[in-house]
Amino acid sequence: MYQQLVEKVKNKRPLIHCITNKVTINDCANVVLAVNGSPIMADDENEVEDITTICDGLVLNIGTLSKSVIPSMIKAANKAKELHHPVVLDPVGIGASKLRKEVVFQLLESSALTLVKGNLSEMKVIESKSGTTKGVDVNIEDTINDDNIDQYVAYAKNLSKKINAIVVITGPIDIVSDDKKSYIIRNGCKEMSKITGTGCMLTTVIATYVTANLNQPLEAAALATAMMGYSGELAYQKICKENSGLGSMHMYLIDYLSKMDQLYKEGIKIESR
Amino acid sequence: MYQQLVEKVKNKRPLIHCITNKVTINDCANVVLAVNGSPIMADDENEVEDITTICDGLVLNIGTLSKSVIPSMIKAANKAKELHHPVVLDPVGIGASKLRKEVVFQLLESSALTLVKGNLSEMKVIESKSGTTKGVDVNIEDTINDDNIDQYVAYAKNLSKKINAIVVITGPIDIVSDDKKSYIIRNGCKEMSKITGTGCMLTTVIATYVTANLNQPLEAAALATAMMGYSGELAYQKICKENSGLGSMHMYLIDYLSKMDQLYKEGIKIESR
Amino acid sequence: MYQQLVEKVKNKRPLIHCITNKVTINDCANVVLAVNGSPIMADDENEVEDITTICDGLVLNIGTLSKSVIPSMIKAANKAKELHHPVVLDPVGIGASKLRKEVVFQLLESSALTLVKGNLSEMKVIESKSGTTKGVDVNIEDTINDDNIDQYVAYAKNLSKKINAIVVITGPIDIVSDDKKSYIIRNGCKEMSKITGTGCMLTTVIATYVTANLNQPLEAAALATAMMGYSGELAYQKICKENSGLGSMHMYLIDYLSKMDQLYKEGIKIESR
Repeated sequence: MYQQLVEKVKNKRPLIHCITNKVTINDCANVVLAVNGSPIMADDENEVEDITTICDGLVLNIGTLSKSVIPSMIKAANKAKELHHPVVLDPVGIGASKLRKEVVFQLLESSALTLVKGNLSEMKVIESKSGTTKGVDVNIEDTINDDNIDQYVAYAKNLSKKINAIVVITGPIDIVSDDKKSYIIRNGCKEMSKITGTGCMLTTVIATYVTANLNQPLEAAALATAMMGYSGELAYQKICKENSGLGSMHMYLIDYLSKMDQLYKEGIKIESR
Repeated sequence: MYQQLVEKVKNKRPLIHCITNKVTINDCANVVLAVNGSPIMADDENEVEDITTICDGLVLNIGTLSKSVIPSMIKAANKAKELHHPVVLDPVGIGASKLRKEVVFQLLESSALTLVKGNLSEMKVIESKSGTTKGVDVNIEDTINDDNIDQYVAYAKNLSKKINAIVVITGPIDIVSDDKKSYIIRNGCKEMSKITGTGCMLTTVIATYVTANLNQPLEAAALATAMMGYSGELAYQKICKENSGLGSMHMYLIDYLSKMDQLYKEGIKIESR
Repeated sequence: MYQQLVEKVKNKRPLIHCITNKVTINDCANVVLAVNGSPIMADDENEVEDITTICDGLVLNIGTLSKSVIPSMIKAANKAKELHHPVVLDPVGIGASKLRKEVVFQLLESSALTLVKGNLSEMKVIESKSGTTKGVDVNIEDTINDDNIDQYVAYAKNLSKKINAIVVITGPIDIVSDDKKSYIIRNGCKEMSKITGTGCMLTTVIATYVTANLNQPLEAAALATAMMGYSGELAYQKICKENSGLGSMHMYLIDYLSKMDQLYKEGIKIESR
């Protein structure tokens, strides 16, 4: 099944419109290319609807939110909804400011979202419309592990139902879920959090895969999540072997993503729940 | 002749003012440094004239255009024109939105442009003041190859006359042309399009070379184009040899650019037409 | 003593709020992570106070200044002052425009600054409230060397007293000084200036170290400066050995920074003055 998802991305080469943050915008564009999509980054209110129209899918990422880009996000989301394009939201650091909460809650109300990806702290803010997150990283108590995985799978299904979108909850174990079915993914390594933007990159890979596989969005998101994690594992193994560091790991992560259309078979760990 | 162009860049170390996109701004700055220029990125309307004044050349790139930066581009272009500084325009994805067309047409009317670099889709929008481009990449039918090269050389000369600027049309074969003379360049490889911003980087390399060689802008642009392409070839060869991927290729591209002042002799393929 | 400073960073993992430029924002975030801090980049006026409040330290960098971000900088600086958080300013290219001078002078008047880091040209603009700098690089006559080091140590102490902040003056020899005590650092190499943002990265490393070591800010800044320089030396040695180029050096710089918590012992050169 997975090879079919890969082939669809390669054949369609989906054009992904990204309204994203300034920190990782280059990595996000390169990652879409690495997994055989085509990116276009554009966030001015005066052109986003034109751009959304020529694209196949939309990514919204609030990592360096500015007030001026909020109308752009709303306009692009509404245009994408009208055109039945998938819309993927990454609510980076939603708990860090009122501004971030406002835009995310506004986007949730638009009913345009196909998928929301965040760590557990971020998802809890969405779920409860409250709570705080320490910066853009997860709070330590909010970690998905083998002891609480069943609880969090149920939580994910419930949250998906509540917000009417697929949810991807990232952590030591990742959960990809709609309201009925879940996949859990045991790829990735903690060193990935030492490179800025691995979460943002994952979001764009997911968007690329989901956009090319609209009939199987849950499986596409699960595969994309596993591919990102497995790329991180391989990158970390390589820097350990050669005794290099985080600069090299950043680069190798993109190296492996660009080869994941073959390599994934050897290492993805996806379970249905 | 080419070594002279290289030496002039090294001796003058031209200061290049770039008003460019958020996606590839870091790569563009690093590439100017790699080819022995000095970059300064500044796009606020309140300081662009100050910045243009202390610089030697100007790059305008509309890759992530925002409405607020349009007056900055116009002011900087007019100031550069007044100071007889070269102005190099990269009309990234001009066909993707009305906003992009508007700013490019406004810049063309300013008569400040020294050189415009784009792929064939982008150039056709400029030429016809119409047409569409799929995102920021070239349309498949718009490819320069050996069968149509003479036709496109004539097209380039004609376009250069029409817009009163040197044109660089990129593709499998690149054309660098004014209204009388053309060079065609057979460097580069298709894998370069899998790294975001290779076009933007080329534009800044061209600007650096043209700025330091104002008496031979056509030759300087041709050499810069060949250097960028040859760097891409070498980077791709290296990742094939070591079985790595696109992250490494991105880095090696800049490695080779930083050594191109010597290496170019071994591999550039420039023909006069 | 230095190992204590390192351990404090590792234990506290300080959260650093960066209002910084678009060119090197990704490198700055990655560098904070590499030296065991945690970055959050946020510059919209509507959220900076929220962000500053949840963070431990603040970086202000004017490398691609826009008018809209000036109120953000002032608000964040005032909030940080209120919370007794360290504020580190990098007045990139202050001599290049009136806008840059204005914001820096405004920030100096806020009395919120803990540390200002710049090259000699930039510091002289601050000192004299006049002068010009050629772009963002140092003027050639403004170089600290063994012949004038005593003069510049006295200059640094005097400047620190005048602006009531620690000063870090970068050059072939770096000076880290308050009004009474100075350290001079003989690390780094001139090739570092061929990678954009090594100055910005240094500023964020300094901010991370100072934030985690509020009782020894001068020593923390000196160690951070030496670590950055030593990382550059090692990165340059590596590319010479393997005959690669500036793309690789950029990556290796971050590799070595991420290992500097051990490696620093073998190569930092800090003298008290």
